Amino acid sequence: MPKISVKGNSMPESPIRKLVPFAEAAIKKGRKIYQLNIGQPDIKTPKVALDAVRNHTIEVLSYSHSAGFEGYRNKLANYYKNHDIPVNGEEIIITTGGSEALLFAMGSIADTGDEIIIPEPFYANYNGFATASGINIVPVESKIETNFALPPIADFEKLITSKTKAILICNPGNPTGYLYTKEEIDQLAEIAIKHDIFLVADEVYREFAYDGVKHHSVMSIDKLKDHAIMIDSVSKRYSMCGARIGCLVSKNKEVISTAMKFAQARLSPPTFEQIASEAALETPQSYFDDVIEEYTSRRNLLIAGLESIEGVKVATPKGAFYCIAELPIKNADVFAKWLLEEYQLDNETIMVAPAAGFYSTPNTGLNQVRIAYVLKKEDLERAIIILKNALQEYNK
Amino acid sequence: MPKISVKGNSMPESPIRKLVPFAEAAIKKGRKIYQLNIGQPDIKTPKVALDAVRNHTIEVLSYSHSAGFEGYRNKLANYYKNHDIPVNGEEIIITTGGSEALLFAMGSIADTGDEIIIPEPFYANYNGFATASGINIVPVESKIETNFALPPIADFEKLITSKTKAILICNPGNPTGYLYTKEEIDQLAEIAIKHDIFLVADEVYREFAYDGVKHHSVMSIDKLKDHAIMIDSVSKRYSMCGARIGCLVSKNKEVISTAMKFAQARLSPPTFEQIASEAALETPQSYFDDVIEEYTSRRNLLIAGLESIEGVKVATPKGAFYCIAELPIKNADVFAKWLLEEYQLDNETIMVAPAAGFYSTPNTGLNQVRIAYVLKKEDLERAIIILKNALQEYNK
Repeated sequence: MPKISVKGNSMPESPIRKLVPFAEAAIKKGRKIYQLNIGQPDIKTPKVALDAVRNHTIEVLSYSHSAGFEGYRNKLANYYKNHDIPVNGEEIIITTGGSEALLFAMGSIADTGDEIIIPEPFYANYNGFATASGINIVPVESKIETNFALPPIADFEKLITSKTKAILICNPGNPTGYLYTKEEIDQLAEIAIKHDIFLVADEVYREFAYDGVKHHSVMSIDKLKDHAIMIDSVSKRYSMCGARIGCLVSKNKEVISTAMKFAQARLSPPTFEQIASEAALETPQSYFDDVIEEYTSRRNLLIAGLESIEGVKVATPKGAFYCIAELPIKNADVFAKWLLEEYQLDNETIMVAPAAGFYSTPNTGLNQVRIAYVLKKEDLERAIIILKNALQEYNK
Repeated sequence: MPKISVKGNSMPESPIRKLVPFAEAAIKKGRKIYQLNIGQPDIKTPKVALDAVRNHTIEVLSYSHSAGFEGYRNKLANYYKNHDIPVNGEEIIITTGGSEALLFAMGSIADTGDEIIIPEPFYANYNGFATASGINIVPVESKIETNFALPPIADFEKLITSKTKAILICNPGNPTGYLYTKEEIDQLAEIAIKHDIFLVADEVYREFAYDGVKHHSVMSIDKLKDHAIMIDSVSKRYSMCGARIGCLVSKNKEVISTAMKFAQARLSPPTFEQIASEAALETPQSYFDDVIEEYTSRRNLLIAGLESIEGVKVATPKGAFYCIAELPIKNADVFAKWLLEEYQLDNETIMVAPAAGFYSTPNTGLNQVRIAYVLKKEDLERAIIILKNALQEYNK
């Protein structure tokens, strides 16, 4: 039997997806599951995007430009300009999801054994992309006690070596919901310039900033233009997770020309999804206003509900649609499986994402879970009741 | 200025796409270009596939299964069974193009510095995927004199070391058009089993086998089931290059579970294109019969035309829709650029893919080009006239 690679064996299982077989088994038993584990919003995709695909007139579904439709890139640049991100269409490469943009960025700036510093907890799949790229993630711990704010810059500085190629942030943060302040982004910019490393920002939740707080992009800082790489995606913005359309944005011409070689190797991003994404740019502001209002009230309901459960500690998110909650348990992996395999309340249960998979430091966050507030309020209310009851039963 | 990675700098430019800026400049000058350089068929995509997308009823464009729609995988398994490839839906992972399937395969079976042996000339983007994966390609030269048949097995055997993880073939071959015989596939199977390495077969051109010759899949050999990995794609089969839907197929459970971790990290393949691909399985056999007839007559026209030009040598393809032609020139890179920048016949010119980029051995195939016969016959006829005239003028 030929051998699997060390890389393949090291690829982490997705903490979000690895519970899926247990959920499938529970569903087969007739169990209803409230899925708090995955960032799959229930919000409707803008009609303008779905209609554009419905009305396509394609006869030969041919390759598109490796950087994506030129028209789409130019319209996207206009969207960015309206968000204080001054870029043009040639500084954008359309990718197959933010995932591919991250892979292109990692491949373009880091070699096998190089390091990227990331505040943890972080989006779990960064681990997978780093492993696939042969890169080591060096975590800096952020803490639930400070709502997962940026760790002190000194903590970053002492980790920077000749192998450090970049700092990667997710803003607003998945899984923390933390929205970096202008001062925090400026501090990161200073350290990136001082050590001449890249600052990569995953800004896919840009629109999801609550309480009137403004989002600050790394692309808005003029002196950072050679150091900043932005990762983006339509998945969350337009509730189009299945589109798998994202982009890599940089004003650094070398980064773009290098990432283009990765893009050319895989030929082009998918066509229908680009049609949908281009049309989605016509989505009226009222759509976002409604969505923000909905998420804000869901967040308020969820956080209040979690805080009402004895022994639960939660960081209040200011953006995205996740929170990290610390539960009065020892191991969230075991608890999450138990919820699916053994527990039920009137034949219903919940699915949560154990947070350990969002940390790179071993044995960290073991008693934490990530909860996505992507369900409607009555479902969230019910899910909180189930969690409260489940914790009581689990700890009996 | 922060530095680009060694990997990024080593990423090869696509020989198929690197001429695009020169073509764009020529088009701006009003030049008509016959594109013989890229495998973008002019054949219409089956209506059943395009209609399925037109009739979609999606309201929330959500993530799909990381391995792709279960229904699609099961139907695809049926299609394979009809092609002597006995697999089930759990042995298939739907990927974003054959490209992603190759990346998953390479990541699953080889580490940085490991080697994969490939008969050259080979599909140029294998170079890009290998570089992105940190893998070294070890070429075995096949020759135009033998129509690019499988090189002697002894040539493979003397290259196998402890670092060799796989042999990769493309069958029928891009860019050679060579269709491996049953005996050749059996020989490869023997050597893979003997040395306990993988045999990866890119079979995306399966349907395009001419002159009544049968295609032989690596998946049809029972004793090879732990060693065989098949790469596939809908791009060519249904003229759906823009769909970016492919798959990785293996009966080796470790390969599938490892590749699934790569698949989970990027969440899912695009939804609309899966809808199109699933519907495309309903395409009637008459579609393929017509397409094969069309390609056969195009091939016959092209090969006869090329052979009629003095100093041109060409290998007759038995499958796919490419041929490699040796031209009476020194450097096809220079010639291909000259065709776009300086040459014209009644304001028309042609675009060809210099073949050197399809070889891994330096300075090989310098006087060869890859020609795709994806244009209608009258265009191919005209393109041959232009090539003949251009060679005369170039060699004056």
